Amino acid sequence: MAFEKGDLILANYTAKVKDTGEAIETTLEADAKKLNIYDATRKYEPRLVAVGEGWLLSGLEDEVKGMGVAQKKEIELTPEKAFGVRDPTQTRMIPLRKFGEREHELTVGDSVDIDNRVGIVRFIGSGRAQVDFNHRLAGKSIVYDFEVLKKLESDEDKVRALVDRRLAGEGGRVSFELGETELRVSIPEELFLVDGLQIIKRGIANDVFKFVPRLAKLTFSEDFANEKVVAKKEEVKEPEKVEAAVPKPRKRKAAPAPSTS
Amino acid sequence: MAFEKGDLILANYTAKVKDTGEAIETTLEADAKKLNIYDATRKYEPRLVAVGEGWLLSGLEDEVKGMGVAQKKEIELTPEKAFGVRDPTQTRMIPLRKFGEREHELTVGDSVDIDNRVGIVRFIGSGRAQVDFNHRLAGKSIVYDFEVLKKLESDEDKVRALVDRRLAGEGGRVSFELGETELRVSIPEELFLVDGLQIIKRGIANDVFKFVPRLAKLTFSEDFANEKVVAKKEEVKEPEKVEAAVPKPRKRKAAPAPSTS
Repeated sequence: MAFEKGDLILANYTAKVKDTGEAIETTLEADAKKLNIYDATRKYEPRLVAVGEGWLLSGLEDEVKGMGVAQKKEIELTPEKAFGVRDPTQTRMIPLRKFGEREHELTVGDSVDIDNRVGIVRFIGSGRAQVDFNHRLAGKSIVYDFEVLKKLESDEDKVRALVDRRLAGEGGRVSFELGETELRVSIPEELFLVDGLQIIKRGIANDVFKFVPRLAKLTFSEDFANEKVVAKKEEVKEPEKVEAAVPKPRKRKAAPAPSTS
Repeated sequence: MAFEKGDLILANYTAKVKDTGEAIETTLEADAKKLNIYDATRKYEPRLVAVGEGWLLSGLEDEVKGMGVAQKKEIELTPEKAFGVRDPTQTRMIPLRKFGEREHELTVGDSVDIDNRVGIVRFIGSGRAQVDFNHRLAGKSIVYDFEVLKKLESDEDKVRALVDRRLAGEGGRVSFELGETELRVSIPEELFLVDGLQIIKRGIANDVFKFVPRLAKLTFSEDFANEKVVAKKEEVKEPEKVEAAVPKPRKRKAAPAPSTS
């Protein structure tokens, strides 16, 4: 029951460095706490994975393809299949004065940004620091505890998961109507000012059209309510009068202005 | 036929400093060119003014209230009714070294930013500069050539003008449907990435509810099209077959994935 390219699955996993047991990443709150990498600002929940789309390390993806739903597996990746082997030419000796204000507080293990590349200080001595520009996890074997929870079958489930992924776990607040060829997604007011919302919408549209290709159109909608009208209606409701469900048509005219003379 | 608070009017105007004839601002392209303040990046078109809402200098607004549609008037504002009188205590002598790199290129008339206040250099000498923090136009009488073109009567015209104002002249690309209590505004794709679009939408909603108070709800919508589906339809269309107008229902299933084994 292997997966195919384009399948969407939900999975939990915890990744560690094989030799040291150092925790790298987890989707499980309990593991995050146990391994001391718990971050209260993020949401721990199963990760959406599109099989064959490069959302996982390629070595990991190869293994996941062969798994089935509800299967748990320990997957070990050699450095070649994880973050690459260490390249000894990717280190540089850098004079300490280049670090400016940080010169005197520089410590081995610090992460530094040099010419827009991030490196790690490996060694400090005789006025220079050795900075290693290899990926932090290059040369390490990584062990994943990986569990496939579910394969998403319905388009409803797919849309929900794809929207949620781009909205960093806030997708549950979004409501949508899925038609035969059209999808309508309502963004709630509390998400109107999310950073990069317009880019997020474009990303959701691209994802949805890819994984639910029968859709021809996606409409995002955002509702604003006229607080004054809402407040007025509530006032009127108070005396519990029986009223017609259809609002009375009002004259198409702005409210009379207070006299200013 | 004076205007009332809340009336929306369209007006053209050109403002100059009375004594010097220096051009300050104009809504007319011809005047901008003639007066050498033409800016090719902006759109010259009549300005929307909400009477009594403080969108104009208060002295100007007082005069405009008494005007009528299609009336032209030269309006002279004393400093008190324009940008205020000059306050001699609002100048400071500032040591030149405080200007850092700009110290040696500082010139009388330069605009400078000191402690987040903008001032103008009035005088330079003996290692110091006199900086004037009064408004650039304080103490000046201003003359407006003001013409009221139109009073907006229909809610359609009001909505169109209010949307256009917040979208800096791009409002013509927006389409809308105005119902009895609901307004639906469709943002076209070319405006999806306008800077601050979410703030603009909030502003439009506030304006529209204020000047068309019968509305209870405003919905913004943004459509994304699935390019692949659109392309496919066009391919199918090419042979000029007669087809049913209603798209055939497709199976709710993702496209079959290419075999990966």
